[in-house]
Amino acid sequence: MLHFDTDYMEGAHPAVMNRLMETNLEQTVGYGNDAYTAEAKRKIKKACGLPEEARVHFLVGGTQTNATVIDALLARHEGVLAAETAHINVHESGAIEASGHKVLVLPHQEGKLKAEDVKHYIDEFYRDETYEHMVAPGMVYISQPTEYGTTYTLAELKALSTVCHEAHIPLYMDGARLGYALAAEGNDVTLPDIARLCDVFYIGGTKVGALFGEAVVAAHPDRLPHFFPLIKQHGALLAKGRLQGVQFDTLFTDGLYEKLGRHAIRLAMKLKEAFRAKGYEIHIDSPTNQQFFRLPNEQIDRLAHYATFELWGPRGTESTVVRFVTSWATREEAVDELISHL
Amino acid sequence: MLHFDTDYMEGAHPAVMNRLMETNLEQTVGYGNDAYTAEAKRKIKKACGLPEEARVHFLVGGTQTNATVIDALLARHEGVLAAETAHINVHESGAIEASGHKVLVLPHQEGKLKAEDVKHYIDEFYRDETYEHMVAPGMVYISQPTEYGTTYTLAELKALSTVCHEAHIPLYMDGARLGYALAAEGNDVTLPDIARLCDVFYIGGTKVGALFGEAVVAAHPDRLPHFFPLIKQHGALLAKGRLQGVQFDTLFTDGLYEKLGRHAIRLAMKLKEAFRAKGYEIHIDSPTNQQFFRLPNEQIDRLAHYATFELWGPRGTESTVVRFVTSWATREEAVDELISHL
Amino acid sequence: MLHFDTDYMEGAHPAVMNRLMETNLEQTVGYGNDAYTAEAKRKIKKACGLPEEARVHFLVGGTQTNATVIDALLARHEGVLAAETAHINVHESGAIEASGHKVLVLPHQEGKLKAEDVKHYIDEFYRDETYEHMVAPGMVYISQPTEYGTTYTLAELKALSTVCHEAHIPLYMDGARLGYALAAEGNDVTLPDIARLCDVFYIGGTKVGALFGEAVVAAHPDRLPHFFPLIKQHGALLAKGRLQGVQFDTLFTDGLYEKLGRHAIRLAMKLKEAFRAKGYEIHIDSPTNQQFFRLPNEQIDRLAHYATFELWGPRGTESTVVRFVTSWATREEAVDELISHL
Amino acid sequence: MLHFDTDYMEGAHPAVMNRLMETNLEQTVGYGNDAYTAEAKRKIKKACGLPEEARVHFLVGGTQTNATVIDALLARHEGVLAAETAHINVHESGAIEASGHKVLVLPHQEGKLKAEDVKHYIDEFYRDETYEHMVAPGMVYISQPTEYGTTYTLAELKALSTVCHEAHIPLYMDGARLGYALAAEGNDVTLPDIARLCDVFYIGGTKVGALFGEAVVAAHPDRLPHFFPLIKQHGALLAKGRLQGVQFDTLFTDGLYEKLGRHAIRLAMKLKEAFRAKGYEIHIDSPTNQQFFRLPNEQIDRLAHYATFELWGPRGTESTVVRFVTSWATREEAVDELISHL
Repeated sequence: MLHFDTDYMEGAHPAVMNRLMETNLEQTVGYGNDAYTAEAKRKIKKACGLPEEARVHFLVGGTQTNATVIDALLARHEGVLAAETAHINVHESGAIEASGHKVLVLPHQEGKLKAEDVKHYIDEFYRDETYEHMVAPGMVYISQPTEYGTTYTLAELKALSTVCHEAHIPLYMDGARLGYALAAEGNDVTLPDIARLCDVFYIGGTKVGALFGEAVVAAHPDRLPHFFPLIKQHGALLAKGRLQGVQFDTLFTDGLYEKLGRHAIRLAMKLKEAFRAKGYEIHIDSPTNQQFFRLPNEQIDRLAHYATFELWGPRGTESTVVRFVTSWATREEAVDELISHL
Repeated sequence: MLHFDTDYMEGAHPAVMNRLMETNLEQTVGYGNDAYTAEAKRKIKKACGLPEEARVHFLVGGTQTNATVIDALLARHEGVLAAETAHINVHESGAIEASGHKVLVLPHQEGKLKAEDVKHYIDEFYRDETYEHMVAPGMVYISQPTEYGTTYTLAELKALSTVCHEAHIPLYMDGARLGYALAAEGNDVTLPDIARLCDVFYIGGTKVGALFGEAVVAAHPDRLPHFFPLIKQHGALLAKGRLQGVQFDTLFTDGLYEKLGRHAIRLAMKLKEAFRAKGYEIHIDSPTNQQFFRLPNEQIDRLAHYATFELWGPRGTESTVVRFVTSWATREEAVDELISHL
Repeated sequence: MLHFDTDYMEGAHPAVMNRLMETNLEQTVGYGNDAYTAEAKRKIKKACGLPEEARVHFLVGGTQTNATVIDALLARHEGVLAAETAHINVHESGAIEASGHKVLVLPHQEGKLKAEDVKHYIDEFYRDETYEHMVAPGMVYISQPTEYGTTYTLAELKALSTVCHEAHIPLYMDGARLGYALAAEGNDVTLPDIARLCDVFYIGGTKVGALFGEAVVAAHPDRLPHFFPLIKQHGALLAKGRLQGVQFDTLFTDGLYEKLGRHAIRLAMKLKEAFRAKGYEIHIDSPTNQQFFRLPNEQIDRLAHYATFELWGPRGTESTVVRFVTSWATREEAVDELISHL
Repeated sequence: MLHFDTDYMEGAHPAVMNRLMETNLEQTVGYGNDAYTAEAKRKIKKACGLPEEARVHFLVGGTQTNATVIDALLARHEGVLAAETAHINVHESGAIEASGHKVLVLPHQEGKLKAEDVKHYIDEFYRDETYEHMVAPGMVYISQPTEYGTTYTLAELKALSTVCHEAHIPLYMDGARLGYALAAEGNDVTLPDIARLCDVFYIGGTKVGALFGEAVVAAHPDRLPHFFPLIKQHGALLAKGRLQGVQFDTLFTDGLYEKLGRHAIRLAMKLKEAFRAKGYEIHIDSPTNQQFFRLPNEQIDRLAHYATFELWGPRGTESTVVRFVTSWATREEAVDELISHL
């Protein structure tokens, strides 16, 4: 059976595992104060074009990272602006609200926020005479790529950044699958662009080659004050902090992170072209590792003999949208075999 | 200048004030353990057709009451279903989220939830294979009347109650302006109906004759376990609890609460008919004390010389929706004078 | 039966009630944006020797005020230093923790914190290498008078203020019974002293002549940023804000607040001297309106025929500490009658 | 340089790492729904003498596990009873309070709670007439071993369990270092004892052979209702849940978990005997892997040339308490070399 359900079905890239094995019995101090972590931070800052005084913090998983960063960025009377489809609004079991903050929802276009919608929301908010009885928009959350596999262009990201900075609120990017956005077809947004335009963002490891781990990056050292105790308070501090250090050090050595992204994208595009060539409907023309097709139900049932994949929403009467996901670990033979069954 | 901004512009009904004066220097124990509070609870249960073992609790204000009751009714992994326009979703500064709970928004019809939309949401929720990663619908919040002055009919309330009970989640009614719904034109919902169909509801005092105070009612004594410490924890416990006791005792003596409602409704209907007779557009055909008209901007500017009232949303280019509110305290002469200026 | 249980057994001082009656049917805007509230704020600032740009906010009750102010003053990783006996640590049903903050307890001397203990705690905290895994001391909470009726001297208050300012953390004073401290025997601390030495404090109305209401004062306008939505979020915003305005305007006219304090203190001292003269043990030599005596159990049982009062802790085998409380409302005849029974 | 700072300085036991390597590229579903996790749960239940319907959940780290379990076990008006020295009270950056719960502190004896102190607290609490204004004791937290390396005997654990069950509150055990307690000198408490006497407990992996991971065990399936979404809400859910499955499967195969414990204890005892033989003061006679000695400062300075270890509290004027920690990974040669320098 082939598996295209999601991008966290395997462990870590062999280079990462080997490095964990090599360093396994070394003794280091805890909580990320070790040399591996320092080196990983150095490499990430370099890849982001950031100076030494920028800040990198390692957390364990995505929901946790979103909850911790958002809690750090918001004052008590503020909420976070996000697309209605945002992971924090739908699939994090209320972790944002459990920290006391409201998610202020905006419409989306295939998962993306538009700068003008953000601006309009903020403008209208402060024009309302009762605004002090309402939750103030205190930051903007986006993800790159989005839940729909789509990506922001550099122009779109600049526009969002401008709106946020004019409103004096931070822009935060969830990069759970960032490696796949950086390698996406037609992508014109680099890590240094993101580091310059977003106040805080994270580089996802869990879905891009690591066993687990997310790297939170803030260009300005004062953007996340007292973030260490907040990481601890949110239960996001790993005793053996060097585990993320070793993993991200490996991922950011010799361009491995970029290579993993490119691999997944190449296979995703191959898959998309094959579906397209067979005449199937591309539901969302995603340039990243998540591909959405509308398939006749009989075709879904037939493919289910060879592969696992997700229905994207409830099953329709005649056809249904499905999602196929590739990753750094996807084997080309698996893709070819799947294609042979289309 | 005449004032039709809202229904909390005066103090309390003279009968309430007189009773506060008469009892002012009496000494009673604190926190609602006094005889006035006991008597008020007795009268409220009687008016609701509830047996002695039902529970009544007095809190101070509406936002506070909503936050406390919702916190009491929800488990940590649950959220509250409410109309997008609900007070808890828009105008409570994030009080629900500050207690850790998400507001799960549903579409509305002039402020009202439809039972079938609630049912659909719950059904779809549990059909989603990832539902354990999402906030579970743990209760339903409605208000009677709604933010738009509209009211649920008995049939609609029964339908909501049935959906909730089949889903094993409580139905909660915010009755900040309940007196005005009970007296509304065409209303077929009585206090005993509400007490039977809603698991918890509150009878608003602040906007209906009291200086302040809201009476939370739960038919089943086990519905709000340990509610007293939760009231205290939410900062909603008044040291001089007898103040609400005296006020609600007065409001529920000789049908005063109903009388106050009828007074406001009669004047609201008079106002509506006058606007209608003058050819103005009724924006929402509200049967309660809030009336919404669409007026030409020049008419708004002209009326502003005689009366204060609220714009309902941003000013339009040619016309704008406005809200006029009557209350237990509105003088008939004020309404007549306003009408003379139409 | 005479009642010396506590200082919130009556309603409001007649002057306050009269003013509420006189203004009852006036129409004002809500949420404290009315002229009475403005005037009350002006008078309070004047009494505190503060300039116009200082801030005064009105809330409803004490627990609520503590929870809201502490939530406003603390960052998420910080806790509040307080005496083990502090109201916030013992008698607020966990309202501080419900907002996410830890109470960091310090030893006390008859309810009072010592500046050197605060300094020692802070010094030791930052000397601990693991301090980022611990809750940082983010503010100091004191009450004047304390739970034991004792008061800080000007020198003690200055010392606390100095320690806090050197540590860059705010000093907050709970003044639920502040009127009784200002009038206490031997008191050398004035309202302007408090306003100068505490970053934030509140002047209690509930226990000193008002029906309810507490006035939060901050000398620096930036000390409580965005406090209005936080008041709302904590359910502490009264729709009819003018109720506190009218009450505090009255209390701060012609020195009424001070007079009420002096009345209660004079009677408390008369009571203390009578107990002392009869040979009873003064348990705490309180200069304020709460008096603590150790009485033989048979004497307690005998007095219980004439008066109500509180046992201070569990009943002992032979004798027990009891508390008698006077207030602005205590009648001299009641005190005399009680004394006649000693 | 030798390192005796703590027990999380290395990665994982080689058998665990090998198993992670072997399974690395296998594809499994996420969030712990895989076969490895199922097998690990089966083995843990068996080791605990629990039937199939018992519940095991895997989380990532200790602070996170404590915060999530305590949040699940407490109602909003309740707090958790714990020793003043408890990890949750001191070293978790306020994670318990951040979830809204107060830690109710009790005195301790070398880190341990006494059943009679728990009983006394609960009895006194409900004897206090104002108890509804206070935080109710809703559960008891203990750790085995404690922060001081001490352990509860079976009799002590039974006594605590009895007190809790009579008070109808759950007993929860933090087993971050449980493997070292099970192997402790003179220990008479087995895993089945713990599973029977504690309502919930966790078996620590991070400090006992795993890279990370803690296994929460509840004998009764209804004890932690809706725990899955709460794990997610607390950011404690690992996408690649099988990582903990593989690790705990390995640890609970062929008695590895017990072996690792015994190894650490044997070396800890060897170390203690060597210090004792050299005439040094045993500060706490710990039977587990943490050893506490009082050493002259010059001896500390001398040893610091050969080994790292922690000062236990501030440095004294002449001597200071120090902590040496062994683990599953400690090499006997390292212990011998340290002893040679005493």
